[in-house]
Amino acid sequence: MSSSSSSLLEMEIFQYIDAHQSDFIKDLKEWVAVESDSVQPHLRKEVMRMMALAADRLAALGATVNLVNLGSHQLPDGQVLPLPSVILGELGKDPQNPTVCFYGHVDVQPAKKEDGWNTDPYTLTEIDGNLYGRGATDNKGPVLAWINAVETFRALKFAMPVNFKFVIEGMEEAGSLGLEKLLEEENQRFFSDVDYIVISDNLWLSNKKPALTYGSRGNACFFVEVECGSKDLHSGTFGGIIHEPLLDLIALLDSLVDSTGHIQIPGIYDSVAALTEEERKLYESIEFELEEHRKNCGVKKFLYDTKEEILLHLWRYPSLSIHGIEGAFHEQGIKTVIPAKVIGKFSIRQVPHMDLSVVKKQVVKHLEGVFSKRNSPNKLKVSMPLGAKPWLADVNDLLYKAARRAIKTVFGEDPDFIRDGSTIPVARMFQTVTQKSVMMLPIGAADDGEHSQNEKISRHNYIEGTKLFAAFFLEISKLHRNLHETSHTEAIN
Amino acid sequence: MSSSSSSLLEMEIFQYIDAHQSDFIKDLKEWVAVESDSVQPHLRKEVMRMMALAADRLAALGATVNLVNLGSHQLPDGQVLPLPSVILGELGKDPQNPTVCFYGHVDVQPAKKEDGWNTDPYTLTEIDGNLYGRGATDNKGPVLAWINAVETFRALKFAMPVNFKFVIEGMEEAGSLGLEKLLEEENQRFFSDVDYIVISDNLWLSNKKPALTYGSRGNACFFVEVECGSKDLHSGTFGGIIHEPLLDLIALLDSLVDSTGHIQIPGIYDSVAALTEEERKLYESIEFELEEHRKNCGVKKFLYDTKEEILLHLWRYPSLSIHGIEGAFHEQGIKTVIPAKVIGKFSIRQVPHMDLSVVKKQVVKHLEGVFSKRNSPNKLKVSMPLGAKPWLADVNDLLYKAARRAIKTVFGEDPDFIRDGSTIPVARMFQTVTQKSVMMLPIGAADDGEHSQNEKISRHNYIEGTKLFAAFFLEISKLHRNLHETSHTEAIN
Repeated sequence: MSSSSSSLLEMEIFQYIDAHQSDFIKDLKEWVAVESDSVQPHLRKEVMRMMALAADRLAALGATVNLVNLGSHQLPDGQVLPLPSVILGELGKDPQNPTVCFYGHVDVQPAKKEDGWNTDPYTLTEIDGNLYGRGATDNKGPVLAWINAVETFRALKFAMPVNFKFVIEGMEEAGSLGLEKLLEEENQRFFSDVDYIVISDNLWLSNKKPALTYGSRGNACFFVEVECGSKDLHSGTFGGIIHEPLLDLIALLDSLVDSTGHIQIPGIYDSVAALTEEERKLYESIEFELEEHRKNCGVKKFLYDTKEEILLHLWRYPSLSIHGIEGAFHEQGIKTVIPAKVIGKFSIRQVPHMDLSVVKKQVVKHLEGVFSKRNSPNKLKVSMPLGAKPWLADVNDLLYKAARRAIKTVFGEDPDFIRDGSTIPVARMFQTVTQKSVMMLPIGAADDGEHSQNEKISRHNYIEGTKLFAAFFLEISKLHRNLHETSHTEAIN
Repeated sequence: MSSSSSSLLEMEIFQYIDAHQSDFIKDLKEWVAVESDSVQPHLRKEVMRMMALAADRLAALGATVNLVNLGSHQLPDGQVLPLPSVILGELGKDPQNPTVCFYGHVDVQPAKKEDGWNTDPYTLTEIDGNLYGRGATDNKGPVLAWINAVETFRALKFAMPVNFKFVIEGMEEAGSLGLEKLLEEENQRFFSDVDYIVISDNLWLSNKKPALTYGSRGNACFFVEVECGSKDLHSGTFGGIIHEPLLDLIALLDSLVDSTGHIQIPGIYDSVAALTEEERKLYESIEFELEEHRKNCGVKKFLYDTKEEILLHLWRYPSLSIHGIEGAFHEQGIKTVIPAKVIGKFSIRQVPHMDLSVVKKQVVKHLEGVFSKRNSPNKLKVSMPLGAKPWLADVNDLLYKAARRAIKTVFGEDPDFIRDGSTIPVARMFQTVTQKSVMMLPIGAADDGEHSQNEKISRHNYIEGTKLFAAFFLEISKLHRNLHETSHTEAIN
């Protein structure tokens, strides 16, 4: 923390936060203990329980809390599941204050101890200054840091520098189903007096240096299903005389990307925005430790050698990843089975100006073409169960200036201005629907391992992140009031 | 049942079996209720429990039972598990009688209701004359049918026509680990006075017509492991900049077989025995309903159009099947993960005169060649955790004559003389080690679905199969005594 730039008010706030570290970590431990996995149908009730906990927490702040029912959704297998309600919360209505809306989610990706976790994923465990647990960094930690930053003003009986709104959901890891419709419906109500939207659902680019995020890739998820019949077969009794669905599927999946990472689907790069010389220069100035990033993920070698190429391919070019196969044998040992129905799962990260409906057509046409050459009697079905657009913001916005100052105050250095290779569809969704200024303000470090085994947030990032949010409230309040007064003066002149 | 050829003794035996159907089905229900899955490590204790049940059952027959400890084995992940003991049982020592050794196994393939079973796989359920449950046909049903055939002679207080020996194991579905060594050790002891070996661990070729089996394919199982590091990665944060292990693995798996079912590994067909004109004629005479077989497995179309081509490719040509991938996402829904370590699993069915060590070298060389062209920095590891040789018997043997007569008595028709596309390594193992005459005498029908969802044995096959075994005891006794007397007479002349 760079004390030189901190006000007395800030000092008092930061001291309070430091003194209450154990309470804040206890809060996180309670939240991590809920297996609010929105991907696996049988855990939906845990997501519901998590939403209720979050609503209670906001009510305890003094916020008015509205749980909006979104109805239900149907899974690919026909099962109908209730959607968790979305929390819309409000705290403060001072007309002098800007209104900042915070978005976060409290659902998590699947995690099991046997996936390779060193500790139980649902028991927050501190080891060497890191807090390990599913959701610690994505996204329960940041949501609690924001709430605790607000709580600090309340506890110290300081006037709230901004009016708060909260949008907390429980379906982010499963595609934020129903959220866009809700935003549209609430655009003229809940969002009408919102000035700024802040999302803290991503990571810094490095392990140590803070960052501000102004763009993210979208994602188009695909299911490729190949089926030969209703029952699995024995490879001794049928091996050699049938067209095995898994062989068809593997040929289809193998046709998608070459060994250099280049996507082989015809036309897929046609709409990708051309790289300008000015944009390339922006990348040159970013501090990015290629070797640190490589160590974080554990691979021996990247597909590209320079920082610029790596960042360009992460942020502004599409990529295709294969995630796995449903229906084939996946356990330890051997099962001499010919699976009857297999579903390959892959996704293509979207960048400006790719069009989801065009991408879907290109993928289906390509796969059908490859399949037809195999003369297989099996059934092929290609679907795109989820499609999220990319997002890009204006870094000269007031919101980004305020965040930059707060970062300088708490961390003593300027942030990197970065984009995110991950899909955060809510950023794009909030901007498109509300037309407000949207910013992503991460507090997790690059090595936090979101979606991976041994996900963590460091105690340092969790606590300093809480301070960052508190400092940001003061900065955006100041800048907003200045702008407002200036506008007012101009109006008089 | 063709009563014309049945003796009074047989009639009485068959009546007893008919009258005790419910008891025999109750026995099977008890055995099926034990989840004796030898593939999944955490169920090993259930295999142990099943072995104890089988030992008790043999002891109740009056057999002396010896449980031979085989020690332990190590899994690919380093875990050490105890091997279930093998049961060596003996009943009767009449020097006038032939000694018939029966082999069976009481472990099963993995099964879960959610794999697509209509009933709980571990609750034997009768629907329309079929008994559904894991292990019903493979191999608990046939083992119990044999035991109950022996039990019938005991209950009726008839002299035993043969001396019985039993070899019952609990690791067949996981490669019969330790069994070959045991056979070698016991060859001069337990097997020294064995005349014939009977295995009933396969199926008829049709749903209705009985069969005798004189050969089976072997199997070489392969694991192909590709690894980029120790932890799974997020496809947003790393997609597009790393060599994804699953992409490498899919390219490797896609290089194995073409869309016509032809294996692409160089040299793999070099040692396959050439098809003679005489052998081809043997195939022409077999009764085989192509359309029925197709319906049994549910596929729209086979790779070949004629009965001969289908049987040749099932029985005397190698085939390659891919079973699945360990380590990738395999559940419902979407997980935007880049798996760090994936293990592809496939197997190649072996036929005379392929050599397992040569096949292994060919596979490793081929995969390493494909991998090296990808310039991937990931780690590749190819292993062959299981290799089983093919087996071929002489159909003019006494054993086959006796079984043919018993089939004619019980089912009223001659059997098909068939081979099996499945691997039954014990047949080859028993023949190689003991040099005795080995026969496979199936009682399950073609549509029993071994290793598949909704495995079953029909009530008809289970009960008539019990009669078949009892009739076989009488026939082999008669033929053996005749042969013995003839030899004796010849020796005097």
